[in-house]
Amino acid sequence: MDSRIIIALDQLVDQNTLITLSQLVPKVKIGLPIILQYGKDEIKRVLSRANFSEIILDLKLADIGSTMVNVIKAVSDLGDSVIAHAFIGYENALDELKKYANEKNKKIYLLAAMSHPGWFLDIELIYNVIERTQPFGLVAPATRPSVIRKLRNSFPNNVIISPGIGYQGALPGTAICSGADYEIVGRSIYLSKEPIAMIEKINEEMVKRIEQCKASET
Amino acid sequence: MDSRIIIALDQLVDQNTLITLSQLVPKVKIGLPIILQYGKDEIKRVLSRANFSEIILDLKLADIGSTMVNVIKAVSDLGDSVIAHAFIGYENALDELKKYANEKNKKIYLLAAMSHPGWFLDIELIYNVIERTQPFGLVAPATRPSVIRKLRNSFPNNVIISPGIGYQGALPGTAICSGADYEIVGRSIYLSKEPIAMIEKINEEMVKRIEQCKASET
Repeated sequence: MDSRIIIALDQLVDQNTLITLSQLVPKVKIGLPIILQYGKDEIKRVLSRANFSEIILDLKLADIGSTMVNVIKAVSDLGDSVIAHAFIGYENALDELKKYANEKNKKIYLLAAMSHPGWFLDIELIYNVIERTQPFGLVAPATRPSVIRKLRNSFPNNVIISPGIGYQGALPGTAICSGADYEIVGRSIYLSKEPIAMIEKINEEMVKRIEQCKASET
Repeated sequence: MDSRIIIALDQLVDQNTLITLSQLVPKVKIGLPIILQYGKDEIKRVLSRANFSEIILDLKLADIGSTMVNVIKAVSDLGDSVIAHAFIGYENALDELKKYANEKNKKIYLLAAMSHPGWFLDIELIYNVIERTQPFGLVAPATRPSVIRKLRNSFPNNVIISPGIGYQGALPGTAICSGADYEIVGRSIYLSKEPIAMIEKINEEMVKRIEQCKASET
């Protein structure tokens, strides 16, 4: 099975490590803090020799349409996809973002629910926004498997990516067992002294858990 | 009456214009798009000789606490205050942001409601978050005066700043008449060929409307 890990880079790792990581996992997610800290050019340089099939910009966009479009314009050469908050709504917000993203061949992921305890919005509040925006993907936390199951049932054709593995407490494989397509791993990798060994370990654990849950389903 | 205008810079104006503007209005709000487009150093250079009493970074933060803190860390030398979304919730989100902002002597504005038609969250959903976070200020749209009135009644001690004047349809002074402290004006100024004359015109109109509404109250 190909790896279903997305690496979240909220801190930069050195370029050689990143190149090796890109041979082990398919996708990378880049956070706003490192874009602001290092600047676009440095991030572009570090990513340039890595070989990820998708670079997701985790900007957590949550503004009116024209501002979200201007944010993407400013960093469009950095990535293939962008994460926006579903709660921001459709008219004059995600409608304009979607239109621009389509024109520029960028993918949109809508953040449907978050993992931290303070998050209080019901997933149902956001269904209508997801239906209207028709995003490429959805983001939902591994720490809330019931939310992932609901989203998978209601949106069978969207790619679901899921943070919360490792430091935030969810075990590798649990989100995929609930219906996600990819699991996002951040601190466990970029804070590790041996990120390559760590990713291999997480990958193995993930494969095992997925095999177990598939077996228990049949 | 001192000007109650906050200039929203979502496009850069030249440094001399900005210096003159800073003599006419007290505060400026800097958007994420121009920080990403020009880079921190250029924004800092342009702002360096202007004389605003407060520089508000409109980052529309909406992430877990540690990420919001990392975003502020990356741009902390640019501004005095930062705007975050109230809907992101308190535990492990705004609690951590508030703690960090206190330590670093930065002010937080919580975005309580937005002006675009797609915004669907009831203001009441967010009251509890505002009460717990105790932000310096609140952001609420001039296009929804009833929301401003509700916030003013419930949070008499918070500074309320209000976008939506001009291009978005609200007339200068309307938000202040509803209880706001400052009105944010963006496109009307930075898209104008004569931004200085424009700000004087808006200021005059604002003063007139505020005098009228004060007179009608008594």
